Amino acid sequence: MIDKDTIAAGNAHADADLARDYETLGERLDRRGIGIDAIKAKVAAYGVAVPSWGVGTGGTRFARFPGGGEPRGIFDKLDDCGVIHQLTGATPAVSLHLPWDKADPADLRAKAEEVGLTFDAMNSNTFQDQPGQTHSYKFGSLSQADAATRQQAVEHNLDCIEIGTALGSKALTIWVGDGSNFPGQVHFGRQFERYLDATAQVYAGLPADWRLFTEHKMYEPAFYSTVVQDWGTNLMIAQHLGPQAFCLVDLGHHAPNVNIEMIVSRLIHAGKLGGFHFNDSKYGDDDLDTGSIDPYRLFLVFNELVDAADAPGFDPMHMLDQSHNVTDPIESLMSSAMEVQRAYAMALLVDRAGLSAAQDANDALAAQGMLKAAFRTDVEPILAMARRDKGCAIDPIATYRAAGYRAKVAGKRPAVAAGSSGIV
Amino acid sequence: MIDKDTIAAGNAHADADLARDYETLGERLDRRGIGIDAIKAKVAAYGVAVPSWGVGTGGTRFARFPGGGEPRGIFDKLDDCGVIHQLTGATPAVSLHLPWDKADPADLRAKAEEVGLTFDAMNSNTFQDQPGQTHSYKFGSLSQADAATRQQAVEHNLDCIEIGTALGSKALTIWVGDGSNFPGQVHFGRQFERYLDATAQVYAGLPADWRLFTEHKMYEPAFYSTVVQDWGTNLMIAQHLGPQAFCLVDLGHHAPNVNIEMIVSRLIHAGKLGGFHFNDSKYGDDDLDTGSIDPYRLFLVFNELVDAADAPGFDPMHMLDQSHNVTDPIESLMSSAMEVQRAYAMALLVDRAGLSAAQDANDALAAQGMLKAAFRTDVEPILAMARRDKGCAIDPIATYRAAGYRAKVAGKRPAVAAGSSGIV
Amino acid sequence: MIDKDTIAAGNAHADADLARDYETLGERLDRRGIGIDAIKAKVAAYGVAVPSWGVGTGGTRFARFPGGGEPRGIFDKLDDCGVIHQLTGATPAVSLHLPWDKADPADLRAKAEEVGLTFDAMNSNTFQDQPGQTHSYKFGSLSQADAATRQQAVEHNLDCIEIGTALGSKALTIWVGDGSNFPGQVHFGRQFERYLDATAQVYAGLPADWRLFTEHKMYEPAFYSTVVQDWGTNLMIAQHLGPQAFCLVDLGHHAPNVNIEMIVSRLIHAGKLGGFHFNDSKYGDDDLDTGSIDPYRLFLVFNELVDAADAPGFDPMHMLDQSHNVTDPIESLMSSAMEVQRAYAMALLVDRAGLSAAQDANDALAAQGMLKAAFRTDVEPILAMARRDKGCAIDPIATYRAAGYRAKVAGKRPAVAAGSSGIV
Amino acid sequence: MIDKDTIAAGNAHADADLARDYETLGERLDRRGIGIDAIKAKVAAYGVAVPSWGVGTGGTRFARFPGGGEPRGIFDKLDDCGVIHQLTGATPAVSLHLPWDKADPADLRAKAEEVGLTFDAMNSNTFQDQPGQTHSYKFGSLSQADAATRQQAVEHNLDCIEIGTALGSKALTIWVGDGSNFPGQVHFGRQFERYLDATAQVYAGLPADWRLFTEHKMYEPAFYSTVVQDWGTNLMIAQHLGPQAFCLVDLGHHAPNVNIEMIVSRLIHAGKLGGFHFNDSKYGDDDLDTGSIDPYRLFLVFNELVDAADAPGFDPMHMLDQSHNVTDPIESLMSSAMEVQRAYAMALLVDRAGLSAAQDANDALAAQGMLKAAFRTDVEPILAMARRDKGCAIDPIATYRAAGYRAKVAGKRPAVAAGSSGIV
Repeated sequence: MIDKDTIAAGNAHADADLARDYETLGERLDRRGIGIDAIKAKVAAYGVAVPSWGVGTGGTRFARFPGGGEPRGIFDKLDDCGVIHQLTGATPAVSLHLPWDKADPADLRAKAEEVGLTFDAMNSNTFQDQPGQTHSYKFGSLSQADAATRQQAVEHNLDCIEIGTALGSKALTIWVGDGSNFPGQVHFGRQFERYLDATAQVYAGLPADWRLFTEHKMYEPAFYSTVVQDWGTNLMIAQHLGPQAFCLVDLGHHAPNVNIEMIVSRLIHAGKLGGFHFNDSKYGDDDLDTGSIDPYRLFLVFNELVDAADAPGFDPMHMLDQSHNVTDPIESLMSSAMEVQRAYAMALLVDRAGLSAAQDANDALAAQGMLKAAFRTDVEPILAMARRDKGCAIDPIATYRAAGYRAKVAGKRPAVAAGSSGIV
Repeated sequence: MIDKDTIAAGNAHADADLARDYETLGERLDRRGIGIDAIKAKVAAYGVAVPSWGVGTGGTRFARFPGGGEPRGIFDKLDDCGVIHQLTGATPAVSLHLPWDKADPADLRAKAEEVGLTFDAMNSNTFQDQPGQTHSYKFGSLSQADAATRQQAVEHNLDCIEIGTALGSKALTIWVGDGSNFPGQVHFGRQFERYLDATAQVYAGLPADWRLFTEHKMYEPAFYSTVVQDWGTNLMIAQHLGPQAFCLVDLGHHAPNVNIEMIVSRLIHAGKLGGFHFNDSKYGDDDLDTGSIDPYRLFLVFNELVDAADAPGFDPMHMLDQSHNVTDPIESLMSSAMEVQRAYAMALLVDRAGLSAAQDANDALAAQGMLKAAFRTDVEPILAMARRDKGCAIDPIATYRAAGYRAKVAGKRPAVAAGSSGIV
Repeated sequence: MIDKDTIAAGNAHADADLARDYETLGERLDRRGIGIDAIKAKVAAYGVAVPSWGVGTGGTRFARFPGGGEPRGIFDKLDDCGVIHQLTGATPAVSLHLPWDKADPADLRAKAEEVGLTFDAMNSNTFQDQPGQTHSYKFGSLSQADAATRQQAVEHNLDCIEIGTALGSKALTIWVGDGSNFPGQVHFGRQFERYLDATAQVYAGLPADWRLFTEHKMYEPAFYSTVVQDWGTNLMIAQHLGPQAFCLVDLGHHAPNVNIEMIVSRLIHAGKLGGFHFNDSKYGDDDLDTGSIDPYRLFLVFNELVDAADAPGFDPMHMLDQSHNVTDPIESLMSSAMEVQRAYAMALLVDRAGLSAAQDANDALAAQGMLKAAFRTDVEPILAMARRDKGCAIDPIATYRAAGYRAKVAGKRPAVAAGSSGIV
Repeated sequence: MIDKDTIAAGNAHADADLARDYETLGERLDRRGIGIDAIKAKVAAYGVAVPSWGVGTGGTRFARFPGGGEPRGIFDKLDDCGVIHQLTGATPAVSLHLPWDKADPADLRAKAEEVGLTFDAMNSNTFQDQPGQTHSYKFGSLSQADAATRQQAVEHNLDCIEIGTALGSKALTIWVGDGSNFPGQVHFGRQFERYLDATAQVYAGLPADWRLFTEHKMYEPAFYSTVVQDWGTNLMIAQHLGPQAFCLVDLGHHAPNVNIEMIVSRLIHAGKLGGFHFNDSKYGDDDLDTGSIDPYRLFLVFNELVDAADAPGFDPMHMLDQSHNVTDPIESLMSSAMEVQRAYAMALLVDRAGLSAAQDANDALAAQGMLKAAFRTDVEPILAMARRDKGCAIDPIATYRAAGYRAKVAGKRPAVAAGSSGIV
């Protein structure tokens, strides 16, 4: 963890300016009838989970270029995740991936407590073969033609639930890469039936207070068809499974040009929005840092979430899911968590009564202007003050760099050779 | 209509070669265990509807360049549609668009009978303002914020049902351009609620033996959001409305790269595939001639349809929906109807038992090879022989050109000035 | 024009708050080493041209829904453009389209002077047929197979230069829709040769102080191929023609996902960036208001322009080109002109030395953070103060609405029927 | 290699049917004025190179699932490539990738001769770090900010030329993944300058009879920008370097919806079309089997190539470049080589005089009909007869399976663990 003095020193340096900026922003918001402290309180209460696998350097099918101090396993990863939360105060939970993060649950709980974290949704992995695995997932898992392979995948998911229960998690996220690379390779209908049947077996194993999230993705690793290819199929699945099943939206998993915020709205309407994997993308499932490519789109998603926030039972899960190929993963995750907070804060500034009135009057220019007015507002002082109030860093990236954390862990953790596979 | 002697003369010229080609193709299919006459019988029984508006030259927002002999109204259009069916034997029904095609139902039935056609689905129009219309659709129709505008749109659709009933139609197709051009212009959720409520009023007016088709489209004329933007929303609508409601798939209405044949499969699985608007596209809703850009994709759609053909109650509607900007519309519609037949004929050749076996064995190369073997087969002799047997033209385009139909109607129908709007 | 008292009244209302916001923003920028007055001076000196056709309500191929007070011709259009510049101070020039805007040059110059405008690039039109035109552009213009049609198109462009010379314009913009709707319809190579030859004839007619801008577009109105489909072809053209030929970039004319700011950089590198048609798009050539869909992308384009600003001879043309289907066109053009200014102002705030250093150090997170810091800054007080200093409106939209301009012109200009074609 | 008796046995089985099909196809072509033997001769003389890395099972960033008998190194790979050519007669050359395929040149030449192959273009690799490498390519290679890294990349390319010269190769293909993952990470202009400078150093090392191919790609492994992102940049590079530099087109490296056959035409016009990496794609750089997704697009590319075939000096390089994740790579490469031949054969059938006439007459329907008539023709008997005449297999896939080659090599080559990286 980062030394508290380092945080304090950084904050001391920035404190006066922050106070001034918070004050003048408050003044401007006041003119718009918005109380800055109330916004700050909501931002302070907001958290986005981080994925355990996100703290390692990611890669592509072509190469992976590890950095210094790559985490050796889940306990190193939890250390790194702890630092992210320590500095930002924005990432109170971590999401585990099995079997990558397999360890004694008691040890995991102890370590998480030590670094100030809880456990978010569990993630199963049936898109890779593990050493010694009986049946290969080369041709699919939950939707495979072969029944024994499907059964193996079901059991792995049930294991994830069991382990998650021991950790205090309350949800399972299923993403499969099942699909096909050639027209004709699979029968779309029969493959989907098999997926539904297998997933129903997993669903049957859910504790009463758990949720099951299924995740759609247009393509990759399958390049002609994917069994859960879009939100339409995802909705059919959640409807088929039952009330504990919900759809997960990863911002990078859609066709080009698709209006994602509208999909969010439709899933809200259907009562099936389960949550998010936040990231950004320009081309495909690029897994870039959240808000780095199209920050207005991220804001528009949060505009839907804030709009729906008071609906009964509305409680989507928020998580980052990125691949950090050219940055220090801890820096990217801190930066991204703050981008998510920023989008949330800006969405809170939207004049919703004015917006409704403009919409009802078909005053398109005024309506869009209200969104733009919120988006234009530089809410950084609100985020920074929320952090400062919690004892976190006013400027987490600068503080992290000043603390020399990466160099310290690089001294303890052995260097990793380049060239191995993409995401683990 | 085309003089029968012209048809006979054209056929006489081609007859011997056709007989020879049909014989040698039959021989090759025989080796694959396929009886050519059974395929021909299915192709001969197949029909695809033509849209009344398709026989006029189309255009874009930039310009429209009419040809000679543009139809002056629905009765000219029925003449042109009659010629298409006379020569191809493939387009037994015509689909009307109201109010464009408004006329006395008895006159319409008489004319249709005269030219050998029946009436397919009725199409309502709430994406344009008509002279004297009380409420404008500038900001939408069935989903408008204004209740009176929605009511007007509902009533227009009920009118369409009434007129269609008098014509012997059995279906209403609803496509609306409602959406928005700016983030914030509409509230996605409230707009969708209004759409559902208004459409339910139309649904309530359906006769018991009618079907309601709703059509999704990603964009255009709305350029930020569209209320029925994709098959997921379309499915929610059909589920909301009831058992007579189905989803219509226009091949050009999807996001880039989307796997359309898989959407077809999903809608079949949901029991909600209503039918098709066939055309082709490279960029957006280009409304190009069917099969002109990606004939394999068209084949893959028919591969799904043939696969599902024996499912109980499976009866999707088939129609062409194209914009003919640079060709004689009659030629394009004839050519496209034959392309649809061709895709159907090729799909009938797929070795389904072999395909299933390869799929179950995860033998991707063999499975795709079976589709390719069917697609590679030149089924033109089957199509041509089916036409010849019905007294239609072996080569409809050549016969149509030889008959000089366009020049004849250009002599009777006044020239149309260039530059007016796109699609009517 | 708008009454000066109305402007003064609106400004009086907002003046104190603006002064305060400008002051506190100045303070914050000062801490970053940026002098706010210097930024304001650059913003005040910046102008973007408006298109004469932009002040009329636009449409799609499906419909057009005119608003009240549609301009009856070029002199009404110049009135409307004058209002835009009067209130924003950001649009000093107007770009004419021939033959739409044909009138006596002396009258045009007098009217422009009256409303405070000059003339930007001239635009030719060979994508529509005009009444009485000898040869049709149905199958293309400058690249048509028919030589006489090409010649007609060349002469029209030469006319545009002649008229433009009389108006004080210094550039001709050529956009053609030439292309094809079917594979095989045109021979790509021969069509391109014809385009190059015809355009060279136009180029030969350029006065020595004129520039020729050619504009690429992926598709529409041609839906299979377009002769100037992308910047690669556009660059080949500009290289072929000579030193007065440059490439025009319309932000909405690219393939999905394309990195437009990188194209801007490549054209700068080639010395062939001619200028911009600013707008925004989500799907195709949507011609939406600039910055309304992806404001960060607009900023990234200006980041390139500011970066290259000091290169010798660097002088790209800036123009809005939008279709206003659901808003008052005057409001949309004012709002868009200010969005362009905003992107420019934010790009001026980028710490270029710091950015270069981070780039050279491969510090991706720091580098992107510098762009984000600029983009996050709410520069509205700078823009508003620049307007106020010029006697323009602090809040142009509110002032315009308060002035009741639209109602006034609607009283004078007859209502236009709905339903006619898209863009004129 | 495959036992000759196995080939003979398979051919004996199919011989009579092939003779009959060749005869009746010849008859049909004869009616169209085409001599089948001349087409067969051209097909027989045609060859497409295979990539050494293509015979190993590929993967994605998520996983790789090796099959049985994975080649252990370049000598096993040459064995596999030899089998492909032995059975198809269509793949006379192999393209090496360094350092993956590094070995003593004399041994490589001897092995190649043994299996009946020659060496096509050499491929350098600066997108991965090799063990012991001094400078990392994490942030790029030929365009890196760091000069020493660029130098290392240049030298590796010069090594490739040296080794290739020893092998009888005549070309070097450079593909780099250099780019950025964040706006701001790189300066587009400076990065491009560095790329041009470094590549010019490689170009300077080319023997007089060599060609240099540079390859563009829209994205992956870089996800915001790529230094050679499209054909426009690629053309600038080839123009910058000189007369021995040409552009390589990989069919899967373009933006969605892009008209690739038109890019081929433009590069032909510029005299800079260097060659192809054939494959197919539905979403991104999917590296699927050639012709498996959109066979008409492949045909349209060959339509351009056949059209330009007689241009002086026109000699593009043809190679397969695919990732075989779910099939036996040998089967996929054989099947793909035949798909390329098929597209070539169909393109040879186009009535070019008729097509030109229809194009000049703006008869779009007739023009496209001529392409479709060629594409509809089942040319399999021509391909099969060309193989048979050479002593290759009439049905290479069936013969390969009958020969049990995969099982045999699986007995000799040790099993490979799943899960390692994507492409090697």
